Amino acid sequence: MEQSRKAFIQKAALGIAGTAAIPFFSKTAIAGNTSLKAGTALPVGIAGYTFAKFDVEKSIAMMKRLGIHNLSVKDFHLPLDSSAEKISTVLAQFAAAEIKVYTVGVIYMKTKEAVDTAFDYAKKVGVDMIVGVPNYDLLDYTEQKVKSTNIKIAIHNHGPEDLLYPGPAEVLDRIKSRDARMGLCMDIGHARRAGANLEKAIKESGNRLFDLHIKDVTATGKEGKAIEIGRGIIDFPAVVKALNNINYKGMCSIEYEKDMTDPLPGIAESIGFFKGVIVSNI
Amino acid sequence: MEQSRKAFIQKAALGIAGTAAIPFFSKTAIAGNTSLKAGTALPVGIAGYTFAKFDVEKSIAMMKRLGIHNLSVKDFHLPLDSSAEKISTVLAQFAAAEIKVYTVGVIYMKTKEAVDTAFDYAKKVGVDMIVGVPNYDLLDYTEQKVKSTNIKIAIHNHGPEDLLYPGPAEVLDRIKSRDARMGLCMDIGHARRAGANLEKAIKESGNRLFDLHIKDVTATGKEGKAIEIGRGIIDFPAVVKALNNINYKGMCSIEYEKDMTDPLPGIAESIGFFKGVIVSNI
Repeated sequence: MEQSRKAFIQKAALGIAGTAAIPFFSKTAIAGNTSLKAGTALPVGIAGYTFAKFDVEKSIAMMKRLGIHNLSVKDFHLPLDSSAEKISTVLAQFAAAEIKVYTVGVIYMKTKEAVDTAFDYAKKVGVDMIVGVPNYDLLDYTEQKVKSTNIKIAIHNHGPEDLLYPGPAEVLDRIKSRDARMGLCMDIGHARRAGANLEKAIKESGNRLFDLHIKDVTATGKEGKAIEIGRGIIDFPAVVKALNNINYKGMCSIEYEKDMTDPLPGIAESIGFFKGVIVSNI
Repeated sequence: MEQSRKAFIQKAALGIAGTAAIPFFSKTAIAGNTSLKAGTALPVGIAGYTFAKFDVEKSIAMMKRLGIHNLSVKDFHLPLDSSAEKISTVLAQFAAAEIKVYTVGVIYMKTKEAVDTAFDYAKKVGVDMIVGVPNYDLLDYTEQKVKSTNIKIAIHNHGPEDLLYPGPAEVLDRIKSRDARMGLCMDIGHARRAGANLEKAIKESGNRLFDLHIKDVTATGKEGKAIEIGRGIIDFPAVVKALNNINYKGMCSIEYEKDMTDPLPGIAESIGFFKGVIVSNI
């Protein structure tokens, strides 16, 4: 294939996988191209916790510079008790920057009321999925809410310190016989720290893998720290191949937790690396 | 292969290709590993022009943050008429930051005196290669200097505006029958703007390809502008595969020419992307 055309298709394709993913490449690069096949590449987003030290405006400015258009919004940018007006204002800010809020979370649910609050919030925000952490004894109730609202739950694993869901296995074991709208938001850094083999975990998750928090870590175990993607211990080509093998249709949201008061270069390097691996594995 | 070990080897290997390349991964990641095969991956550096708006200290600070240890030094950081003391001071600054100055340039040579100056300078700086642009009528003289000093010349192409060497072909045509120490520093962005097919150009350059300026561009032709690597028209997996195919042993120096007063996020994204492609093609 002619070189630039091949590159164009590779890259443009990255943006249109999944259903509602917004491309990370410029609109001009996508416009006019009618030969792209959907589902040929993984879409990239950002997990809101990355911007824990920044307000909505500054977070949007960074996302614009990074060319990223998909966000998992965190409560510090859009509190769970927000009024309808507040929600509409914040969503309008993101929309003006061509940023789609594709999910909410991570939301911890330790009581029935917290489950109710999370699903009401997701409905008001207009997303079809919550990234959340319901206590074990709330899984039955959470399943009822999934059925009654048609809003999915992607349960998030948080590493060896997490008493409920350290790795993906602890999530899958508890949801695999439940409603198909109950799944996993695999945090690959925490999963690796919890000792998971990521290729195996992705394969075993299959269509229960709804969302991803993509990061790299320095080591397995509790001592593992966040680091720029590509500088740590995770084998990203293997992760991307495994995602392609299960025909993953969700988002790959970068969650950068290093240099949190000055994260932009590290986020940029991380996104660049992950995109480079994606482009190489189409 | 066990996952983390495979990733470790992939990544560690990136740093040790070539002869004197310094890894872009941390020393701790490299230390203690004795099973790495040299020459299995491409080493990454930075072309000094990237830091045109910054002094040596600020440039070093950025390189440290980026984890890059190889620099093609530009005259604004180390002028051609520098005293021996100045050279030794600047080199010590880089060395203290574990940065190796592996070449000098781009140096334009429009007179015999300029050729003399460039080779004297390279010798004083202690590099074995100059990235330069000698006028056509100075190629014979440049070849004499290469022979008498054993310092290589890598001629740099500069795109459709360049009256001497717009693309790699214009360099190769003029050096292919000359001393084997005369070669090419292919600026892939300018080459693409000049209409070159990069895979073909890399293959044709073969062992005359001494150095690389790695960048992405928005379009072919004079209207093509610099952009973060991965966002433009260049097919980087194809470039990396072509480099692997010729068993390229030189440096891959990122040259970032966008946002030059605030380049760090763009450099970081560019380096991340290129590293992601390299890691995927070992």
